[in-house]
Amino acid sequence: MRNLKGRLDLCSINTATLGHREPLSRTIDRIASAGFGGIAPWRHEVEKVNVAEVAKQIKALDLTVTGYCRSTYLPAATRAQFDANIDDNKAALRDAATLGARCFVMVVGGLPEGSRDLRGARAQVSDGIAELLETAREFGVPLALEPLHPMYAADRAVINTLAQALDICDALDPERSGFLGAAVDAYHCWWDPALQASIAAAGRNERILAFHVCDWLRETRDLLLDRGMMGDGVVDLSALRERVERNGYDGLVEVEIFSKENWWRRDPDDVLRVCAERLQTVC
Amino acid sequence: MRNLKGRLDLCSINTATLGHREPLSRTIDRIASAGFGGIAPWRHEVEKVNVAEVAKQIKALDLTVTGYCRSTYLPAATRAQFDANIDDNKAALRDAATLGARCFVMVVGGLPEGSRDLRGARAQVSDGIAELLETAREFGVPLALEPLHPMYAADRAVINTLAQALDICDALDPERSGFLGAAVDAYHCWWDPALQASIAAAGRNERILAFHVCDWLRETRDLLLDRGMMGDGVVDLSALRERVERNGYDGLVEVEIFSKENWWRRDPDDVLRVCAERLQTVC
Repeated sequence: MRNLKGRLDLCSINTATLGHREPLSRTIDRIASAGFGGIAPWRHEVEKVNVAEVAKQIKALDLTVTGYCRSTYLPAATRAQFDANIDDNKAALRDAATLGARCFVMVVGGLPEGSRDLRGARAQVSDGIAELLETAREFGVPLALEPLHPMYAADRAVINTLAQALDICDALDPERSGFLGAAVDAYHCWWDPALQASIAAAGRNERILAFHVCDWLRETRDLLLDRGMMGDGVVDLSALRERVERNGYDGLVEVEIFSKENWWRRDPDDVLRVCAERLQTVC
Repeated sequence: MRNLKGRLDLCSINTATLGHREPLSRTIDRIASAGFGGIAPWRHEVEKVNVAEVAKQIKALDLTVTGYCRSTYLPAATRAQFDANIDDNKAALRDAATLGARCFVMVVGGLPEGSRDLRGARAQVSDGIAELLETAREFGVPLALEPLHPMYAADRAVINTLAQALDICDALDPERSGFLGAAVDAYHCWWDPALQASIAAAGRNERILAFHVCDWLRETRDLLLDRGMMGDGVVDLSALRERVERNGYDGLVEVEIFSKENWWRRDPDDVLRVCAERLQTVC
């Protein structure tokens, strides 16, 4: 396992960690100034400015874009809406290419409003990924399927385990083109009894495209916005990183923390300082 | 699949559904008066009165005890605490026998305070169940391992999928004695991509000891106390029951709803009326 001490160049900050409180250009500067090697920006902040300018700034600061967040949800109640979702994602893939992103993060979406058809939503997701895989190849940007914690199955992602993501990868990309894989996020996956086996399988098939860290707080008070800083929760992050890296992952370690009542209220530079310290001590 | 219309005798109410606002004897009367065939009481309400009297009242009303809730958490930071947890559960098994419970519901516990050793906690759980299985046989009360939703992995249960529960059953009770199995709860399991396969495996091995229903609300606002009434959420409950019953489950259908801000504020008889209606229409 790589030693992260003094190696913030191996570490990336997902801009959500700072709460999207400032213009993206300011956030990019802060992350670069703090010494991190990577950044993962969000579409809503990129799309309201000029993607070429964002790409230029990131490139000038020599930051790796560890992922572009994130896909428009795929499952829809109508074919027209599904097609619109696909088109949205294709446009985002073009921006991901402009940014030089290592992957396009696919949070695939939950059940369409009013639906109880989980199997149908999962089928739509597979169909949509198949279609987007063509575009991903065209633009040279891999799709990283991010299994989300099962508590988001209804409204955010019907892909909920790494095994499930890998099954889709194997079905749609048996040749392991490098354009389809998974994002392993400690928050979403830490509980999974099959995680060790799934990481091994993913590694063998070169499917791990991103690795995200934060922590699961024992007293989690909100389903979405109460993630913990690394070291403040129950996840054995260094054991997880060891496993991911032993199975071939050599990309950056990305911090992604949604924390409305805590970290999003703190000074951004302080947050980055704590991220840096925890990455080097508990991850 | 059995038709529940006019068959409330096939349905049971977990007393938590009424919010534990009244003395247990009053709750028992309400549930029987409403026509339900079963009840699942909790230890904290049984243990503060007299278990023999509770058993007598339940028997006089001809209610089936579909489960006795629930185990003391097993994983502990010290051996002494682990042993105390085992002893607690043994005492509860004696009460479960007095009540004539169809099973003792095992919510196995999360990580010991301050621990990040998920694998160790899971090993403790297996050890504890092995020990309790002896007692279960003695008292004639099966242990129903209840996989809890992964959002409870830190603090309530390190068994989080039906597959995982079944692996423990197969390891500890390969002869399928009937004294070790699982409780399938729609709320905890609905999202699981492997659920269909796990239910089939459980059925083949006669492991399904209880079936619990409520619903997952799309806009869940609390991790513990915001479960939905059947029909108000996203779970295809009739498809799930069909699957469970096709695989051999012939016990009662138990309603278990934790709902601090909604159902626990309503009149208990109204809650029971809605449960009865939904059981007969959407389950």
